[in-house]
Amino acid sequence: MRNYLLPALLAVTVPVCAQQQENDSLVLRQLATEVLTHSKAYSNLRDLTQQVGGRLAGSPQMVKAEKWGEQVLKDAGADTVYMQACQVPHWVRGAKEEVRIISRRRDFIPPLNVLALGNSVGSGPTGITAPVLEVSSFDDLEAKKDQVKGKIVFYNYAFRPEFIRTFESYGDAVRYRGQGASRAAKYGALAVVVRSMTHGANNLPHTGAMHYNDSFPKIPAVAIGLEDADLLSNRLKGESDMKLYLKTNCKMLPDTTGHNVIGEIRGTEFPDQIITVGGHLDSWDVNQGAHDDGTGCVQSVELLRAFKAAGIKPKRTIRIVLFANEENGTRGGKKYAAEAKAKGEHHIFALESDAGGFTPRGFSFTMPAEKQAKIISWAPLFRPYDVYDFTAAGGGVDVGELYEAIGTPMGELMPDSQRYFDLHHAANDTFEAVNKRELELGAFSMAGLIYLIDKYGL
Amino acid sequence: MRNYLLPALLAVTVPVCAQQQENDSLVLRQLATEVLTHSKAYSNLRDLTQQVGGRLAGSPQMVKAEKWGEQVLKDAGADTVYMQACQVPHWVRGAKEEVRIISRRRDFIPPLNVLALGNSVGSGPTGITAPVLEVSSFDDLEAKKDQVKGKIVFYNYAFRPEFIRTFESYGDAVRYRGQGASRAAKYGALAVVVRSMTHGANNLPHTGAMHYNDSFPKIPAVAIGLEDADLLSNRLKGESDMKLYLKTNCKMLPDTTGHNVIGEIRGTEFPDQIITVGGHLDSWDVNQGAHDDGTGCVQSVELLRAFKAAGIKPKRTIRIVLFANEENGTRGGKKYAAEAKAKGEHHIFALESDAGGFTPRGFSFTMPAEKQAKIISWAPLFRPYDVYDFTAAGGGVDVGELYEAIGTPMGELMPDSQRYFDLHHAANDTFEAVNKRELELGAFSMAGLIYLIDKYGL
Repeated sequence: MRNYLLPALLAVTVPVCAQQQENDSLVLRQLATEVLTHSKAYSNLRDLTQQVGGRLAGSPQMVKAEKWGEQVLKDAGADTVYMQACQVPHWVRGAKEEVRIISRRRDFIPPLNVLALGNSVGSGPTGITAPVLEVSSFDDLEAKKDQVKGKIVFYNYAFRPEFIRTFESYGDAVRYRGQGASRAAKYGALAVVVRSMTHGANNLPHTGAMHYNDSFPKIPAVAIGLEDADLLSNRLKGESDMKLYLKTNCKMLPDTTGHNVIGEIRGTEFPDQIITVGGHLDSWDVNQGAHDDGTGCVQSVELLRAFKAAGIKPKRTIRIVLFANEENGTRGGKKYAAEAKAKGEHHIFALESDAGGFTPRGFSFTMPAEKQAKIISWAPLFRPYDVYDFTAAGGGVDVGELYEAIGTPMGELMPDSQRYFDLHHAANDTFEAVNKRELELGAFSMAGLIYLIDKYGL
Repeated sequence: MRNYLLPALLAVTVPVCAQQQENDSLVLRQLATEVLTHSKAYSNLRDLTQQVGGRLAGSPQMVKAEKWGEQVLKDAGADTVYMQACQVPHWVRGAKEEVRIISRRRDFIPPLNVLALGNSVGSGPTGITAPVLEVSSFDDLEAKKDQVKGKIVFYNYAFRPEFIRTFESYGDAVRYRGQGASRAAKYGALAVVVRSMTHGANNLPHTGAMHYNDSFPKIPAVAIGLEDADLLSNRLKGESDMKLYLKTNCKMLPDTTGHNVIGEIRGTEFPDQIITVGGHLDSWDVNQGAHDDGTGCVQSVELLRAFKAAGIKPKRTIRIVLFANEENGTRGGKKYAAEAKAKGEHHIFALESDAGGFTPRGFSFTMPAEKQAKIISWAPLFRPYDVYDFTAAGGGVDVGELYEAIGTPMGELMPDSQRYFDLHHAANDTFEAVNKRELELGAFSMAGLIYLIDKYGL
């Protein structure tokens, strides 16, 4: 009964020769055993997260991470390892940000647990003290636009629990982090406080990139944890004249030079056909950048190591790319795509892992239907590994630039998403939050997919 | 593209009326939203794990847990809540066990990290000091049987990493924990040390039940963590005359009275047809029994709460059972089955959750093929929740007794298994290791399945 889906899946696509499928099945089993038994992904991740740590673009840790990347790609057996320079933004948090409730009740309230949003401006040395306007959404902001002037706007939009895949909740809520400051500044707000993009059962604030609309003043922006958001909202109900004191010390410095770190195995038959596989090397400054995206980096490197160990010599060129600056600029992805376009490179597929190092469930893709049908025809090969979904639409942020620039078919590893937003951009995205086997199963899934795409083309 | 499997799945079974499927889909969505938004599972689990804690059969915490169970079943809205008494074993660990390497090298070696195995005998107050014989398997033990006498046998059988579903690794390795002592005692061993049943990346020992064969002397048995197992093995290579000092303080007391805690919603149309849903209330003494099996208990209770909240009045009687003493005797499961048989009860299905509170992937079943085909025909209804596998063979330990006694079709929730054996029977099986949403998605999946079985019969 176990494989009852197999004939059904094959029926919707091109039937694959049974002998071929048998061989592929054996190679995938070999790759799985290799990764689950001898993987370097977990120990590489330990080094990156614990010895380099948080590595925001422009930071000294960025440089350290690039050196780490160069070394692990060499160790994994890349034919060539090189750096691709790009200009990256250089945002610094400065001293710890602070938000306090100022209440006429005069009871003791500890400072709120906050993080300034990435790319946001500082409040100035004296901070901002102002009344608070809570809004539940942008619609609510528009309805209350006449009350905004001179206030700190508090976006209290909840991360919706009823979506099953948590990236849908994120896609729904993240606009308040990204656009909230400028939309409130338009009506004269002095700063914004945003409920964190998470349904984690704790009070950790979650940072992340925000973007200013140059038409309006640049105002400070912070995220607060869920318990503090509820506290703030509850107090506002009984105390409409409550104020907040808000101080952030961040600033944007001039651009600096960062690098995509790239390792290749040159193809034996079609070296000009390139398959890109990557994750992003940068992370936020407030954690170790383990699931975001240390795991994507070490999985990509592991693919190369496993190919070597299994004696697989790809026909096409496999290029592992550890992208610079995904978090607050995507400059690495843009640079990689621009170079590919300028050089007229032939990219047949680009795969990213940037959704956490959790148990894989499948892959999401953006490509013409007939190409995706070819991939779906391989689904039965992954079923013994509990990897079953090849139908979702998607693709990563960095490889998305390649798709935009030259239309490269793209995909992204789709791990189980339930725990991701518990730790995304928060202090608890650390090495300890990664399970060795979950990480390895993701690396194997990527290796299996790339093996098939290299073998059969796309 | 997302639901391309749907027609294929339906094709293999009885086609379901489209209107009916539409209604069922809405009810499942209602149950999912209810559970993901208003679940009590997580807070109930916090109380059970943190206020009651470890609750081995016979312990004072067992009694406290039974009271907790009675209360949460009442709070969830059961029509009737009652206790079903059964005699349970009463094993106690006593003072902390101790295993030390005694080496002529005289270097400092910290005591090994050990736990006595459940049901095992104590070493006596002076402990046991003896040379060590390492064996890699039972075959290896047989080959070395002439060397066993007067030794401590060290079973160093590794939990195999290449199985994808970790319960296969467990099924493969657990015989060394269960039978190792008696098989070594047969040849004159004085005690056994067993490599823990885990591939966790740490040194935690994992306890669990062992069983004596009455034909041979009862000897002490302990589990050690993986790092200590490797240390011991490496030292033995260079130092064959090395000894171990082993002291355990455990003993088996006379049986005592425990209870299955049961809550029912009486069926509106077929009250005599019973659907059992449960987990086990007992746990080992060394942790909080969170994933094993606090999560199964609170998920089962949540099903009842969610039915009430969603206004679902089942046609058949739904009976939530929090089983006594699964860990070292299964006396609760046996009692429940014996009573069902003695009373001639009509049980149409029994579902267990005892594989951890991780993201659900499906259910395993043991039942006639035509019944399972009926369940498989509902698979498309679960696909939006990323619950996709209804084909595996299985069923829980407790409901297995009902299957044995009266042939009741049975099933078990099948969560992702990658993290389970990191913490199974070890000190780190605590509340913090449970993710709220993963727990809730399991509870919803159980509620959805039981809703359909109640509605359509089986």
